[in-house]
Amino acid sequence: MLNTCTQWMEEVLLANWTRSIKRSELQEMLYEASTPDIISLALGLPAPELFPREAVSRAAAHVLGNDERSLQYGPPSQLLKKQIVGLMAQRGVTCHEDQIFLTAGAQQGMSLLTRLLLNPQGTVLVEEKSYTGFQQVIEPYQPNLLTVGTDSETGMDVSAVEAILSSGSRPAFIYAMSDGHNPLGVSLSAQKRARLAELARAYRVPIIEDDAYGFLYYGDRPTPPLRGFDDQWVYYIGSFSKILGPALRSGWIVLPEALIPKLSIVKEASDIDTATFAQRTIAAYFEAENFEDHLAGLRREYKTRRNTMVNALSDKFPSDARWGIPETGVFIWVELPAEIDATALLKVAIKKERVAFIPGQSFTVNGDSRAGNCLRLNFSHCSPGLIEAGIERIAEAIGRYRNGLSFGANRMPRQSASGDASPEKRDQA
Amino acid sequence: MLNTCTQWMEEVLLANWTRSIKRSELQEMLYEASTPDIISLALGLPAPELFPREAVSRAAAHVLGNDERSLQYGPPSQLLKKQIVGLMAQRGVTCHEDQIFLTAGAQQGMSLLTRLLLNPQGTVLVEEKSYTGFQQVIEPYQPNLLTVGTDSETGMDVSAVEAILSSGSRPAFIYAMSDGHNPLGVSLSAQKRARLAELARAYRVPIIEDDAYGFLYYGDRPTPPLRGFDDQWVYYIGSFSKILGPALRSGWIVLPEALIPKLSIVKEASDIDTATFAQRTIAAYFEAENFEDHLAGLRREYKTRRNTMVNALSDKFPSDARWGIPETGVFIWVELPAEIDATALLKVAIKKERVAFIPGQSFTVNGDSRAGNCLRLNFSHCSPGLIEAGIERIAEAIGRYRNGLSFGANRMPRQSASGDASPEKRDQA
Repeated sequence: MLNTCTQWMEEVLLANWTRSIKRSELQEMLYEASTPDIISLALGLPAPELFPREAVSRAAAHVLGNDERSLQYGPPSQLLKKQIVGLMAQRGVTCHEDQIFLTAGAQQGMSLLTRLLLNPQGTVLVEEKSYTGFQQVIEPYQPNLLTVGTDSETGMDVSAVEAILSSGSRPAFIYAMSDGHNPLGVSLSAQKRARLAELARAYRVPIIEDDAYGFLYYGDRPTPPLRGFDDQWVYYIGSFSKILGPALRSGWIVLPEALIPKLSIVKEASDIDTATFAQRTIAAYFEAENFEDHLAGLRREYKTRRNTMVNALSDKFPSDARWGIPETGVFIWVELPAEIDATALLKVAIKKERVAFIPGQSFTVNGDSRAGNCLRLNFSHCSPGLIEAGIERIAEAIGRYRNGLSFGANRMPRQSASGDASPEKRDQA
Repeated sequence: MLNTCTQWMEEVLLANWTRSIKRSELQEMLYEASTPDIISLALGLPAPELFPREAVSRAAAHVLGNDERSLQYGPPSQLLKKQIVGLMAQRGVTCHEDQIFLTAGAQQGMSLLTRLLLNPQGTVLVEEKSYTGFQQVIEPYQPNLLTVGTDSETGMDVSAVEAILSSGSRPAFIYAMSDGHNPLGVSLSAQKRARLAELARAYRVPIIEDDAYGFLYYGDRPTPPLRGFDDQWVYYIGSFSKILGPALRSGWIVLPEALIPKLSIVKEASDIDTATFAQRTIAAYFEAENFEDHLAGLRREYKTRRNTMVNALSDKFPSDARWGIPETGVFIWVELPAEIDATALLKVAIKKERVAFIPGQSFTVNGDSRAGNCLRLNFSHCSPGLIEAGIERIAEAIGRYRNGLSFGANRMPRQSASGDASPEKRDQA
């Protein structure tokens, strides 16, 4: 049967770009992590117990009970656009309803903007480590990638961006995550934001700013996103997935009004540019509920979980591991000692310790392998207790891995994963 | 301000294909038709009063009340896939759950399959008159289009398909609507279905079968769709938009299991391949409700509306107009006398008579202008009373138009739109 399938598959001519398709690590994880006995720190999932299910249920009932056309085609929700203008003001961004474009989530935002901006074999400027979902978006275009590094404290290397642009390159766009970078957890410094927006303006190269996590900050209200620094060259992508619920598949783009008619055509071709039941439900939710309270609750709980993870890392991880403490978002990026291959470690972790994370390698663009000893950990999904247990299990896996290495290569004595490493030794900036 | 916008727009480099973007007639209509005083026979909208709103509300409340993960990411709903296998059996198609791929509606089904199959500047085989939404899907690929005609009684010209394939052309796929063709209203004859499936098999060219309307039939249960004639070369697209509600944005594809992993990657890049709240709600709806009864109610009411429209056309339209009576779907295609330009007529109709339809020209591929005197009328959206009034208004507009012509060109005397034409004179096959 498998043979038949394979033979048959070879007969169907798929588009050329599909030859490079491999099932994404992220998607594999989605299935791995659904086994109940595995503690998954892998995916960027929200905490399910914090979903405002009752409030959403009331909102859905309100929509269906009061509007005969609630399941009908119709223009994207004007009410929701208005509410999003208010949300953006909280992020320090001034915009108006005619600059809001509703999407089926941040991923669709990226997909539609890429369709609008990128030619086949076009050029994109992106960080060396970046969100895999974005990499999937551009893959069918078989693009030419220009990459820049990311500083672990101040974010994207904006000087490198300038060097690329000043040398004459004109990418179709720059992809940036200014807050709660996925996977690195870092936020772009205020100075770099201003400079990056300036470069976009000066060189007429738009920035796609992916702000899926920007509302989840744990310190003071952060610097406004790049869109706060330029309203013509920054196309901002927002999402309700992390602040309300991913299954609602709703998000938005803030972009110059002049681009919206063309973007509507792109969306219409993709899935019909119509008000969805989810859009209408979210709008009704905002009308009836105190969203600020909900958001404050998310921030409070995720901050606790972040701190729990940081403390557990300090307690359990080997003393030569390094990580940052994110001010925004849901990920911690951990750099293990250079001899550890995080992909091999993951196999040990899942098989022997029943714990999952994503190896840093998965996020590298252009096959850059300098992240081979890194891993991305999520702290939003699991309860504090499971986070502690998960970190302990990964530490155990590291111990097993090193033990295996020492047996194989006879390089080092076995060492305890729960050793006495003190937090002071680590880079926690 | 407008000048500034225009100047600015010229500075942003959009993808090359976007130069050919024009706002679609269909989308313009969506906005036109939302003015309450216009009777719109334009769009393929379901009747809002037939939406099972209470049942959907119960289903949504059930999902949100009983499942903590109801708003979470998760694999596409396995329960819904199982229910779709049952639905497909009603269409005379045998398939299994592993061949079902869930989408955000038929439009997304087309968009994803095209991404999977079509190279930039690739070749597609399509009818000369076809669904505009499909034309929008392929436009970014700037494809080479091979076209065939459509017989008003038996559907797509399958001999012409054979001629194209036997001459050596190998399109990436054939796009076909075997039941309730949009815009022509025709269904493919059983003989042609068998032959077309045979050709796909013989020449190894897949068919994308768009079956958005196939469940809405008004006579005996129709011949199975093309997917019933071949399970390897026909990729079937279904939708809940016309049988439950468009705002749910849910549909499915039936295709060979071997293609699903690649299609999952394509969807993940597009909008994350996850179970949506709508998918879960529909699955709960199917568990709790009698969908067969709902569907029977839709068929009964839409049949009444179709008959109302046909009778009104017979009563009110000029004697030299022609139309078919569709056995499936929601559209009637009308051919007016050759001297009438339906696009010009639409302007008169909207402005003077407050009634809307879609000019046939909008559906032509490759700029074919042989549909200039045709129009597409929808009979699912308006009540029978409004359908009668709408047809009378269009007839009045035709009178005005001819009157205008006669004044302008002095070719003919003014004639009444509600003349004595008898139904016997018309082609109603």
